Amino acid sequence: MADSSPAVQEPDVGRVAVDVADVLAAQARLRRFLTPTPLHYAERFGTWLKLENLQRTGSYKVRGALNAMLAALERGDERPVICASAGNHAQGVAWSAYRLGVQAITVMPHGAPATKIAGVAHWGATVRQHGNSYDEAYAFALQLAEQNGYRFLSAFDDPDVIAGQGTIGIEIAPHMPDVVIVPIGGGGLASGVALALKSQGVRVVGAQVEGVDSMARAIAGDVREIAPVPTLADGVKVKIPGFITRRLCASLLDEVVIVREAELRETLVRLALEEHLIAEGAGALALAAGRRVAGKRKCAVVSGGNIDAAVLATLLSEVRPRPPRKPRRRNTDVLRNRPNLSPSPSPSIRKTVTATAVEETLW
Amino acid sequence: MADSSPAVQEPDVGRVAVDVADVLAAQARLRRFLTPTPLHYAERFGTWLKLENLQRTGSYKVRGALNAMLAALERGDERPVICASAGNHAQGVAWSAYRLGVQAITVMPHGAPATKIAGVAHWGATVRQHGNSYDEAYAFALQLAEQNGYRFLSAFDDPDVIAGQGTIGIEIAPHMPDVVIVPIGGGGLASGVALALKSQGVRVVGAQVEGVDSMARAIAGDVREIAPVPTLADGVKVKIPGFITRRLCASLLDEVVIVREAELRETLVRLALEEHLIAEGAGALALAAGRRVAGKRKCAVVSGGNIDAAVLATLLSEVRPRPPRKPRRRNTDVLRNRPNLSPSPSPSIRKTVTATAVEETLW
Repeated sequence: MADSSPAVQEPDVGRVAVDVADVLAAQARLRRFLTPTPLHYAERFGTWLKLENLQRTGSYKVRGALNAMLAALERGDERPVICASAGNHAQGVAWSAYRLGVQAITVMPHGAPATKIAGVAHWGATVRQHGNSYDEAYAFALQLAEQNGYRFLSAFDDPDVIAGQGTIGIEIAPHMPDVVIVPIGGGGLASGVALALKSQGVRVVGAQVEGVDSMARAIAGDVREIAPVPTLADGVKVKIPGFITRRLCASLLDEVVIVREAELRETLVRLALEEHLIAEGAGALALAAGRRVAGKRKCAVVSGGNIDAAVLATLLSEVRPRPPRKPRRRNTDVLRNRPNLSPSPSPSIRKTVTATAVEETLW
Repeated sequence: MADSSPAVQEPDVGRVAVDVADVLAAQARLRRFLTPTPLHYAERFGTWLKLENLQRTGSYKVRGALNAMLAALERGDERPVICASAGNHAQGVAWSAYRLGVQAITVMPHGAPATKIAGVAHWGATVRQHGNSYDEAYAFALQLAEQNGYRFLSAFDDPDVIAGQGTIGIEIAPHMPDVVIVPIGGGGLASGVALALKSQGVRVVGAQVEGVDSMARAIAGDVREIAPVPTLADGVKVKIPGFITRRLCASLLDEVVIVREAELRETLVRLALEEHLIAEGAGALALAAGRRVAGKRKCAVVSGGNIDAAVLATLLSEVRPRPPRKPRRRNTDVLRNRPNLSPSPSPSIRKTVTATAVEETLW
């Protein structure tokens, strides 16, 4: 492992402060390029979903990358951009670079999902695969940046990136949730959304996977590097959270909920079969955490949808989610209390209803 | 096969006329119950998608069913409702019945997708499985209706159902497409959307699967019953289109495009992997047809998403879509024409770019 761990060293940007004004400035920048993603009510989950899996490049990461690259161009910085990424940040950088006519180089670890690698190549960015973890890719990207005069763009520990991700919060706010749940990897999304929403009295809750809970530990004071366990949620597999994001999350988040891997898998499959939406592992994380979060109007951010076909096919074959709880039988009650129902159900109907009740146990 | 084929006999409703005013009335009725579904731009397809797979019950059918049941209640008709359906209309009827406190009985043929049967049972409606085709289920449902005094609600050949489906057109109109593509089974969706949009100068194109093209034949004057070939698009497998819908489609549709089964499968998988949306077979039909339709601002209706997990898993494992066409390399051109780029790409970058071009051929 590279000894220069990403978050232990101070970030090289002089400016580490970021506030809600930066989020609003980001929204003004991004408006020309990205349309707001839909908010969808998942009836059987009782939760609103912010569909960042329908975002350009299939994940929210394009917001932060594009905002940072636009902000750099405003400052007159036209250097090629290099990044290290498990995949979604790289796609965001590649798409933004394509739209802005900037050169982009992305370093991804071996083992990154094929769909994410293909997505980066699709938009014409250079793909370098190096190392077996994000941290090795990160060290190599820093080295290339220094050698060639590229601008290194962090996936989460950058004020402009955080502000860009925060625009999700601005888009959710008019729908007046009382709590918003976001997945946490490095903490960029959680920091940005919390910046945008805390001033409006909305609770913001983070979600992490059991064994990949570096931010939860950091908030509790333990900032040592963790050894993440294998998880479906490749997008949040971060050994040590960001320097800026750690401080923001510690001060702004109301809670961090830890989700078990099995819950994550079941939520991902239910999301596909009941809501017809494909989320990647990290994308189903906030919704999975939602069960443990109280709220009258909950909103979970479905952060991305870039999952390999084979992985999804296996999940669909193997995971058999419990059927959703039935709604209360509103109709029969109403019928019973309604005086002028005509014609009244005949004996043959009653029989049919009984037969069905038996059949239902088969599903 | 039952000799009383559904569309050969005249519909038993006295009123068969339906116009755009009925569609607007339907919108006013449905507004309390259903929020508009999102319109999503599928970048790599170059087409807007109307996401009726995110509709309550996972398909647009709930619009027509709910409108017809609300209209019946307005007329003082509180009879239990019975329908025959391959699955989505039954789910629409079940959901509406639950919401309105009306009793509902649904007849589905054996072999209907398990997810659709479970959906109906979820909302507390009675499920009867009868016969091996929609037509056998239809004959049985008519028989039950007569015996028990139920109201039979057609899946497509009913003015209120057509008007309800047309509300999709009203929701699409403000986005100003020049052409809207819809799948055709019985023709209810196509009729309703065409009613809503033709007066606004929008072209409306229907899509059918090769070998399941009863409406295309009917429009050409051949109204004989067809023997549909097996298809992924179970939702549009109709032997003979509706009486009302046939006349509306013949006078209002600009074109009917026939899609090959292989194109349909590939489109369904691309929709999942590139846009992270799950469509059922019929739901991917309009988008598949979109390739053969000219237009500056095309919109395809993704009519539903109720597909069995095992079917989807098999498709994801077996279908390997061709990679999407790459966007023009906007960035390199811009860089080449930009005078003040600093620092200029070093030799090592050039080498990396070349290496990537080779690697790309692997994906």
